Amino acid sequence: MTPSDAARRPCCAFCAIVAGNAEAHIVCEDERTLAFLDHRPLFPGHTLVIPREHVETLADLPAADLGAFFEVVQRIARVMPDALGAEGTFVANNNRVSQSVAHLHLHVVPRSRGDGLRGFFWPRHPYESPEQMRDVQSRLREAIERDKPPA
Amino acid sequence: MTPSDAARRPCCAFCAIVAGNAEAHIVCEDERTLAFLDHRPLFPGHTLVIPREHVETLADLPAADLGAFFEVVQRIARVMPDALGAEGTFVANNNRVSQSVAHLHLHVVPRSRGDGLRGFFWPRHPYESPEQMRDVQSRLREAIERDKPPA
Repeated sequence: MTPSDAARRPCCAFCAIVAGNAEAHIVCEDERTLAFLDHRPLFPGHTLVIPREHVETLADLPAADLGAFFEVVQRIARVMPDALGAEGTFVANNNRVSQSVAHLHLHVVPRSRGDGLRGFFWPRHPYESPEQMRDVQSRLREAIERDKPPA
Repeated sequence: MTPSDAARRPCCAFCAIVAGNAEAHIVCEDERTLAFLDHRPLFPGHTLVIPREHVETLADLPAADLGAFFEVVQRIARVMPDALGAEGTFVANNNRVSQSVAHLHLHVVPRSRGDGLRGFFWPRHPYESPEQMRDVQSRLREAIERDKPPA
């Protein structure tokens, strides 16, 4: 089964892979999901997992599809260390900012100690005060509450 | 509902939060999942999502729990930009390497253009040859095939 043409975007590099119009080194696929090697890997084996249907961000994937989609992500993360002689994995997803292709993709990257990535990585930006931290907490809590489906 | 004592690890900082023995700025919770602010955020609002039950890595989460777990991750990623005035999100998970607490946690981090994180971030390590890329592909494909549950 492939998604309907309506679900593909002519200008989307990942939809082109789904449609068979662009080459990719596929590592696994099922009816709804495709996983292939990133051609500019952080490390060899760096894999991208995408839904065949074009959705832009994680927020746009239908909730009913989350389980099956992340089962593929999980399977790749599980087998990757043994398959590639790595010690762990880094699983990541950029939404809108730093998202190079506007088609949801999860990165699964093999990691080994001393590989130079250093995890988190970046300067931290601590809270300026306990009040600021509680304010941020409240804003998130309220937004999540508003987002919940009615019981 | 809270997990049985057997599911908690006395020395796990996140199990202590689940048990109510350590403070956290909780942003949402349900029967199986807890989300709270990272106390050393990449940016204010940086949230960690954990299963209440102690599992170490993404690979260890029961497949049946993936959908509900990532529904929480998705919800936070969906509401975060509006709630915090951000433009996007970074969702990430370190397994074993760079994993500071050995209790599965997903990072959901607000992102804005020019915030200094620069996405991917690190030097790339390109494939040395098409053969190397096909070899890596084969190793992953075969490992995934072996990992699949019998049909």
